Amino acid sequence: MKLSDLGEGGLLDLLREWTAAPSPGIAVGPGDDAAVLDVPGATHQIVITTDAWVEGVHFSRALLAPDEIGHRAMAGSLSDLAAMGATGLAAFVNLHAPPDLPVDFVRGVYQGMERIAGACGVGIAGGDTVKGELALGITAVGTVPRGRAVLRSGAKAGDAILVSGELGRSEAGRLLLAGEVHETLPERLRVVAEAAHRSPRPRFDVAKVLTTLERRTVDAQLSHETIESVRPTAMIDVSDGLALDLRRLCAESGVGCRIEEARIPVDGAARRIARNSGLPDTSLALGGGEDFELLFTIAAKDVELLLDAVAKVRLDVTAIGQITRGAESLRLVGEDGTERPLPDLGWDHFRAKPDSAKRE
Amino acid sequence: MKLSDLGEGGLLDLLREWTAAPSPGIAVGPGDDAAVLDVPGATHQIVITTDAWVEGVHFSRALLAPDEIGHRAMAGSLSDLAAMGATGLAAFVNLHAPPDLPVDFVRGVYQGMERIAGACGVGIAGGDTVKGELALGITAVGTVPRGRAVLRSGAKAGDAILVSGELGRSEAGRLLLAGEVHETLPERLRVVAEAAHRSPRPRFDVAKVLTTLERRTVDAQLSHETIESVRPTAMIDVSDGLALDLRRLCAESGVGCRIEEARIPVDGAARRIARNSGLPDTSLALGGGEDFELLFTIAAKDVELLLDAVAKVRLDVTAIGQITRGAESLRLVGEDGTERPLPDLGWDHFRAKPDSAKRE
Repeated sequence: MKLSDLGEGGLLDLLREWTAAPSPGIAVGPGDDAAVLDVPGATHQIVITTDAWVEGVHFSRALLAPDEIGHRAMAGSLSDLAAMGATGLAAFVNLHAPPDLPVDFVRGVYQGMERIAGACGVGIAGGDTVKGELALGITAVGTVPRGRAVLRSGAKAGDAILVSGELGRSEAGRLLLAGEVHETLPERLRVVAEAAHRSPRPRFDVAKVLTTLERRTVDAQLSHETIESVRPTAMIDVSDGLALDLRRLCAESGVGCRIEEARIPVDGAARRIARNSGLPDTSLALGGGEDFELLFTIAAKDVELLLDAVAKVRLDVTAIGQITRGAESLRLVGEDGTERPLPDLGWDHFRAKPDSAKRE
Repeated sequence: MKLSDLGEGGLLDLLREWTAAPSPGIAVGPGDDAAVLDVPGATHQIVITTDAWVEGVHFSRALLAPDEIGHRAMAGSLSDLAAMGATGLAAFVNLHAPPDLPVDFVRGVYQGMERIAGACGVGIAGGDTVKGELALGITAVGTVPRGRAVLRSGAKAGDAILVSGELGRSEAGRLLLAGEVHETLPERLRVVAEAAHRSPRPRFDVAKVLTTLERRTVDAQLSHETIESVRPTAMIDVSDGLALDLRRLCAESGVGCRIEEARIPVDGAARRIARNSGLPDTSLALGGGEDFELLFTIAAKDVELLLDAVAKVRLDVTAIGQITRGAESLRLVGEDGTERPLPDLGWDHFRAKPDSAKRE
């Protein structure tokens, strides 16, 4: 059997099986956005994630400048830290490069990585270089107060499902940059989508609000204030499309979901591109990768508190549905009220390259 | 200018310059075997290293079984932790693989990684998979008591230079496995060298002794015992040949060195292969990579204590020379007493592939 028969999901399942030996110090192992490690005598835990970014799979020199290639890869790795509710600390970069690559190209890639890492308070602390096809291996390291990492596995039936930002934007930008969109879009939509693809931002801003929520209850008679910490129950970053990443969150939590198509915050360009291709408006949002927004769940009673808190700092978070009991039941409610299964869209390496704009 | 004009050393210098922005939490950044990070409220620091292992550069499917490919890559990354005096904690693996790679091959690679990681007390805690030419990106994470990491930069004039094990062995094994050796070697030498290439061991055993040395002085009259910690002043693992790695240690410490050719512990097969090719006996030891032995320095007054301690646990450590004052003066004293510069041997990616057995 070959990797292409197995697909990425099947391979990841096998890898988890092969590396399942319990090990002291590993609080959270494979299967989440990042791993969580214990450090002797520390008030904080270490959060680590590592990703490979390969030319022709994750990026193309034809579409992106060197600094954008570096920026995107670093942003994607840091996004996994944000999705754990962690604070960034350091990053490590393995550069695979062909010997005839111009030094100026490499300089650009590192400038892009430094720029977004620096903006997130993260320094590049090491790495390796090797001859090979152009690729970046990025390890991002962060910290989180002990026991406070937000995992994929904590969602419970009844929880609300929310997502930050607008989805499908990066995929719309990619299609625009690649010249695959033949209709004319309003300039504003085009610029926003292309920028989202060129230089995405990890949502540490959203994560910060989500991990510092408090409910203050005042008992006037006793003039006594109670402060209760409120946390998301589960979180993941949207790196492979809403459909696939929601599927992952539900699988890790052992729950189902029911989301409303009309409430999915679809980017304007993504909506028009889908519609002009005769696809549902939500196609690029459900199937397009690398938006790096945060998808999370929170107890229904805490939704209002959360929405107030994000509105105060002018962040954009939308409730799109609920977690349900049946682990295998992933449902999408259409604008006409009809329910159908959540489409099986999203990115899978090793299989043929999916084209989210042409499927469903 | 292309990377091939710059060479790996030149590129690494530029990368250090491009990523030099100071960052809180990074105690030791690029330039050592691994980086050292601070964790809030911890008695220990985190030690992290990341390496890329690419087919055709670091390994060949023709010479090694899948589990040996995994073992070697993991051992090489863990070796960097040992070289910092750290204890292993967790590893992360990025797998780059062509879609037609058999799943059984991948299983073998992971079995090899798990085997050596487990033997070093390290669990595989995560990673990524991507379509591409066969390569492994390995991030190894360890811990060290705060301030106790052994850096490359601490060697001082007058310190003794020591190395564990026997050098050139892995390169001898590689040449034997590749069928590039045409004379017959004693079976024992062949087996040992091939095993060293197939399944190297990170020297946590040696590092453990080096980082727990104590000098006990008893004042009989006062019946009072003083315990003094004794530490190596600098350390590096021998991954690219003794000559290049000693050069790196001296460069980071801003010192020179003078080593005696007759004292270099050369592997038996490596010695014979070199001699039969008309090269100095030490050629493979000086220029052959991936022995993963520890090269370190220690104050001259502590050498005897150290050698006693390693002898007690039957480990093999050899004093080969001294650190000297002149930063650019790297000297090799031949068996006939004549001095010459330390040869400029060792592995450099991006330049043409060196053949250590045919140079000098």
